[in-house]
Amino acid sequence: MNRPNIVILGAGYGGIMTTIKLQKMLKLNEANITLVNINDYHYQTTWLHESAAGTLHHDQIRIPIRNIINLDKINFVLDKVVSIKPEEKKVKLETSELSYDILVVGLGFEAATYGIEGLEEHALTIDNINNARLVRDHLNYNFAMYNKENESNQARLNIVVGGGGLTGVEFLGELANRIPEMCEEYDIDKNLVRIINIEAAPSILPGFDPFLVEYAINSLEARGVEFITRAKLKACKPGCIVYERDGEQFELPTMNTIWAAGVRANSVVEASGFETNSGKVEVRRDLRAPDYDDVFVIGDCALVKNPSSGNTCPPTAQMAVQQAATAAENVKALVHDKKLEEFTPKDSGTVASLGNNDAIGIFLNNQKLLGWKATFMKKMIDNRYLFKLGGVNLLMKNGKFNIFY
Amino acid sequence: MNRPNIVILGAGYGGIMTTIKLQKMLKLNEANITLVNINDYHYQTTWLHESAAGTLHHDQIRIPIRNIINLDKINFVLDKVVSIKPEEKKVKLETSELSYDILVVGLGFEAATYGIEGLEEHALTIDNINNARLVRDHLNYNFAMYNKENESNQARLNIVVGGGGLTGVEFLGELANRIPEMCEEYDIDKNLVRIINIEAAPSILPGFDPFLVEYAINSLEARGVEFITRAKLKACKPGCIVYERDGEQFELPTMNTIWAAGVRANSVVEASGFETNSGKVEVRRDLRAPDYDDVFVIGDCALVKNPSSGNTCPPTAQMAVQQAATAAENVKALVHDKKLEEFTPKDSGTVASLGNNDAIGIFLNNQKLLGWKATFMKKMIDNRYLFKLGGVNLLMKNGKFNIFY
Repeated sequence: MNRPNIVILGAGYGGIMTTIKLQKMLKLNEANITLVNINDYHYQTTWLHESAAGTLHHDQIRIPIRNIINLDKINFVLDKVVSIKPEEKKVKLETSELSYDILVVGLGFEAATYGIEGLEEHALTIDNINNARLVRDHLNYNFAMYNKENESNQARLNIVVGGGGLTGVEFLGELANRIPEMCEEYDIDKNLVRIINIEAAPSILPGFDPFLVEYAINSLEARGVEFITRAKLKACKPGCIVYERDGEQFELPTMNTIWAAGVRANSVVEASGFETNSGKVEVRRDLRAPDYDDVFVIGDCALVKNPSSGNTCPPTAQMAVQQAATAAENVKALVHDKKLEEFTPKDSGTVASLGNNDAIGIFLNNQKLLGWKATFMKKMIDNRYLFKLGGVNLLMKNGKFNIFY
Repeated sequence: MNRPNIVILGAGYGGIMTTIKLQKMLKLNEANITLVNINDYHYQTTWLHESAAGTLHHDQIRIPIRNIINLDKINFVLDKVVSIKPEEKKVKLETSELSYDILVVGLGFEAATYGIEGLEEHALTIDNINNARLVRDHLNYNFAMYNKENESNQARLNIVVGGGGLTGVEFLGELANRIPEMCEEYDIDKNLVRIINIEAAPSILPGFDPFLVEYAINSLEARGVEFITRAKLKACKPGCIVYERDGEQFELPTMNTIWAAGVRANSVVEASGFETNSGKVEVRRDLRAPDYDDVFVIGDCALVKNPSSGNTCPPTAQMAVQQAATAAENVKALVHDKKLEEFTPKDSGTVASLGNNDAIGIFLNNQKLLGWKATFMKKMIDNRYLFKLGGVNLLMKNGKFNIFY
């Protein structure tokens, strides 16, 4: 190929890392590289729950793209992807169209509402910067309104978190720390505020080590979180939610419903005619889409099997970053007409934060950590990512160094 | 009198200063002093516009009452005054009743809506801590929602301030500084945001020196504020306001209407059967109510004439603090059966802040100040008040020392 057009869609964990690696790996005259993203910033999805709870300002978790990529080597296009036309090797954006020779799709996830009645209208999500700061402002607003109204409206102080997976639990942890502060600021008796988690499974954090789950439940309950498990959200109304438990329906007054239970691959992928499996492209071992030799799919849009265990890779930042490394290598191999390598996921563990000062985690060789040690690990992982992304400068600017509390 | 019961209603500028002075002037065995207030904190009404704009956190402008009064000498009752029964020498509170021998009424002001349609339901006010923080959170919420919605709703970004008096103008000044920051935080093009002032008079700041008013208009317009003068607010609806100008009616889309145009004395005073003049008690020269020798009325609930000019004292913090000094002296005189003194207002000037870094002011001998000099004076006045209230400690904690910017 003669200076091929490489187009990368999305500047999430997968896309931005692919871009940064290609920027180093390819010389200026070897390829034209274009990165397309809906925002002019990259953000750390794994920190969104902190912005939503109001414990970390959202400007601390986003990084201007111009600060981390070299604009002399990369064309940056600020636009929204409407569809991909792999037959024509084109990408349709909202205001223009791009042609590619090699495409990397890293369009991430979006909230899934599973058709639950009223969820889209009356619940909030934690799936991007806009929505995370809306959650924070929405909670503040209801706390402020509570004191404005003559009649006490308990629905303003009941906070319902839908889903006890990783995002739900991490958000609960931040919220449990933030609520006492908010009560001081807004002159509200903290005994009036309820934080309620609704989870359909018999326990939160399904799949996690039971001992650590027990620890997490204890840590959150001690800070006032209530768990309602085996409960399915049926409807979301302006002043309440309806859930079903043991075949019975219950109504819970709330004006603060945060839906953290559902995530699906960006619907652009499915709409563009790729063959999908629950919305994701089941990629080949070199991370290319089954029918297209010039399209890589990584991160939450890709269904990747672990060849040794046969398990599906979880939709995590860790996997997206690992896949980006392979995708970049393979893009370079295509440019140079070399053999492509296969992706092998390496599970370096999972940590669930329970607030700024508590966490649980499983690391290499099934080592369990909890409390400050797990928190420490979590922050080290975050800091390592920042270092890989933007070197010492970015680490110093956005890193988490309050590692002992 | 044998250890008379002195009851002070309200811990605003007038009430708290009367309390602090009496605490120093009377010995423990000379009187029982009780302070009644609706909150457990005193706050600086003259700074509320900063909290409402989000430029100063509301916790910076309130001071716990226990930090500034000596609870060994003063009984503090946290309750709301329902009515005063001067014939029975009793005060009815929401949860109890108090008897007094000497009463000081310093119940301050409340927002007046003049029966404008929909104002109470759809406009916000800046008249206390609860409402000021609600204004801030309301603006944040609308900015966050703007990016959430698929269709741009300009009403979320139009901010209408009703009234171009001191509060309205000071709020506009803070807002004009805060909006560019908010636009950065919320990813909103700052050219989309409109800040519109609606004033019924031909100019803002009626009664102020015309040269300084010109300066203020220029300073605010340069930062994007629009003025619509000779315009009367007719109605406030969920998504717009209606105003009348030159006999014609106009509609302006907005979901942010802040009403800073109307203030009246606390309605408890009128409802308690005192003889009132536009809601205020026209006190005698010793600040006592006309018909009751044991009731003092000060601050915004009192109509005080300047004996030399015949003018009415303006409802300002400055006047309330001066009246508190006289009221405290006269309470002491009653206790000791001495002659009461007369109140003589001293006008030490007026400053209108135009944001953190700009202001206009008139000082002694009609000296006009503008820009940083006026800002400096304003902050010095604020700092002096804090010093009088809580000494060096409070000044160091809550004072404004960024006096050059």
